[in-house]
Amino acid sequence: MKRRDFIKTAAVGSIATASVAAPTIVSAKTKIKWKMVTTWPKNFPVLGTSANKLGQLIGEMSDGRIKVKVYGGGELVPALETFDAVSGGQAQMGHGSAYYWKGKVEEAQFFSTVPFGLNAQEMNAWLYHGGGMELWKETYEPFGVVPAAAGNTMVQMAGWFNKQINSVEDLKGLKMRIPGLGGEVLRRAGGTPVNLPGAELFTSLKSGAIDATEWVGPYNDLAFGFHKAAKYYYYPGWHEPGTTLEAIVNKEALESLPKDLQSIVMNACKVVNQDMSTEFTAKNNAALNTLVNKHKVDVRRLPDDVLEKLKALSDEVVQELAGKNKAAKRIFESYDRFRKQVIAWDNISEREYLNIR
Amino acid sequence: MKRRDFIKTAAVGSIATASVAAPTIVSAKTKIKWKMVTTWPKNFPVLGTSANKLGQLIGEMSDGRIKVKVYGGGELVPALETFDAVSGGQAQMGHGSAYYWKGKVEEAQFFSTVPFGLNAQEMNAWLYHGGGMELWKETYEPFGVVPAAAGNTMVQMAGWFNKQINSVEDLKGLKMRIPGLGGEVLRRAGGTPVNLPGAELFTSLKSGAIDATEWVGPYNDLAFGFHKAAKYYYYPGWHEPGTTLEAIVNKEALESLPKDLQSIVMNACKVVNQDMSTEFTAKNNAALNTLVNKHKVDVRRLPDDVLEKLKALSDEVVQELAGKNKAAKRIFESYDRFRKQVIAWDNISEREYLNIR
Repeated sequence: MKRRDFIKTAAVGSIATASVAAPTIVSAKTKIKWKMVTTWPKNFPVLGTSANKLGQLIGEMSDGRIKVKVYGGGELVPALETFDAVSGGQAQMGHGSAYYWKGKVEEAQFFSTVPFGLNAQEMNAWLYHGGGMELWKETYEPFGVVPAAAGNTMVQMAGWFNKQINSVEDLKGLKMRIPGLGGEVLRRAGGTPVNLPGAELFTSLKSGAIDATEWVGPYNDLAFGFHKAAKYYYYPGWHEPGTTLEAIVNKEALESLPKDLQSIVMNACKVVNQDMSTEFTAKNNAALNTLVNKHKVDVRRLPDDVLEKLKALSDEVVQELAGKNKAAKRIFESYDRFRKQVIAWDNISEREYLNIR
Repeated sequence: MKRRDFIKTAAVGSIATASVAAPTIVSAKTKIKWKMVTTWPKNFPVLGTSANKLGQLIGEMSDGRIKVKVYGGGELVPALETFDAVSGGQAQMGHGSAYYWKGKVEEAQFFSTVPFGLNAQEMNAWLYHGGGMELWKETYEPFGVVPAAAGNTMVQMAGWFNKQINSVEDLKGLKMRIPGLGGEVLRRAGGTPVNLPGAELFTSLKSGAIDATEWVGPYNDLAFGFHKAAKYYYYPGWHEPGTTLEAIVNKEALESLPKDLQSIVMNACKVVNQDMSTEFTAKNNAALNTLVNKHKVDVRRLPDDVLEKLKALSDEVVQELAGKNKAAKRIFESYDRFRKQVIAWDNISEREYLNIR
């Protein structure tokens, strides 16, 4: 028996009995095999590669006792069926974001991002130390799914536009790909939100079928080539100020693991959560430089009155979401209480520092 | 042979020979026992409790194969001898911050915090995705010590004052406890920086032996009772905009572990790194409210001209540190290049969002 097998046996023995275990011969090939389905194209920069890292990390920390195979969207199940696949046990894990399942659980959107809501650091603070994680677990409990924060895009860009936005008037009639709560806000501002899969965005922008699209930020957007299809690149990303990406785990599969492996799986998610946000922070600027200096992209800030209008409408939309059902109300109240408190602190710490530096 | 001895032997064997070992009966109670010395008082809120969490997490993910005993400063060795104890193998791990070892390695200060430098998110981005971690490893390599980021205070407060700071003139003659680079900046502004251990701060403020002290932020400061000894609480923490706390590991001890345990130790540091920053983000505001509403603390912003003066002097001080030796220059160049780039991006993302929200 190889030493590695021995350690495996010893570990399992210590969990099952916490006593002395007789050695058992196990094959080096004996492993728990898990599937991770994702909402991203296979190996998609940062989003897909972070899902890969999550799988690798679980394998590495468990000395291969769990082997996770990662699937791109559409490989095993369609991207947006990730949640169902994990819930039904077709895959043991998934990687995506909570707002993709709003058709199933409307209030899940709070665990992804909210227009004019928490940024990444605040979101993580709410989840880990403000009661958010407990509410998220409750939300997915009926589906037999355990959630974890596993990545964050940080503040996104407002998007790529072929029309200038100089006033609130310019939002009227604007045909923009912007899903979720942000889309509903645009609709109330007189625009026409459309939902298109990523793969169709470039052509739709180019042909004029849409006037604008949001995506993520410079690093991802440059890879997509949007600068060849749109003139103006607007900031800031009011609609997605710190989108949490999630790992989801089939509850039964998770609970069937010994405690140490459960801990490894859930802590690997935390590692990837931080890793992805820092990767975006590190890489967005170089991509922005390329867009501006090489591709002559016109980077613009949304005007104040436009932002004010969008903010007022966002408040309306979020309030309405909170009114949908009891669970939504409870989540909103926790989120909103935390938001008010953390903003008061950020105003004299992070925000003030960034302004005076 | 005890299981612990087996694992030790096996671990060394696996590195040395990567060959096959016969199974051995081992007791479930056999463990690798590690000591973690820290620079914090035992169980000190957030700082000390995060070191405890780090130890627990390693135990949990390894199913108790490593058991880490955490010592408060002075329990096993004096707080500021943490680095030496880990370097010399008296303890396998330590928890503190790099600027504490500046007497030994001056350039280590870059891995802790720099006045007007990177905030927590940017610092982590530099470390994990901007080349910082590699430089940090090189810096500690001659001491047989492996570093990891393992906590961050986020932007601190500027400190507790018994004199108002209304202009640059008010810094002259100011006797303030402020260690490190921030202290040198104050000295150049005409003040008198003093270095006192935490335990003496309250009495020194109260007696008038010092006019001011910096510490951490509301959550830690409230616990210390500084509001009973000083009138004004100034922000923002220009001198410590995102102090990285570190875990250090004895290189030989780390490398004697099998790969999976090495991965568990280093990834547990990453988990704690994120956890501590989010704990501060979540808890500072409630403490600030108590200070303001219950204890009637006068919270004030440092005036613009004071901040401008401190910034100009900080640039001088950091440039001088960079000129101390070749290693310092290399680290500074990496840090400074990253800083310029990340600020350009933050200006249109995080900063802009916090301002328009």
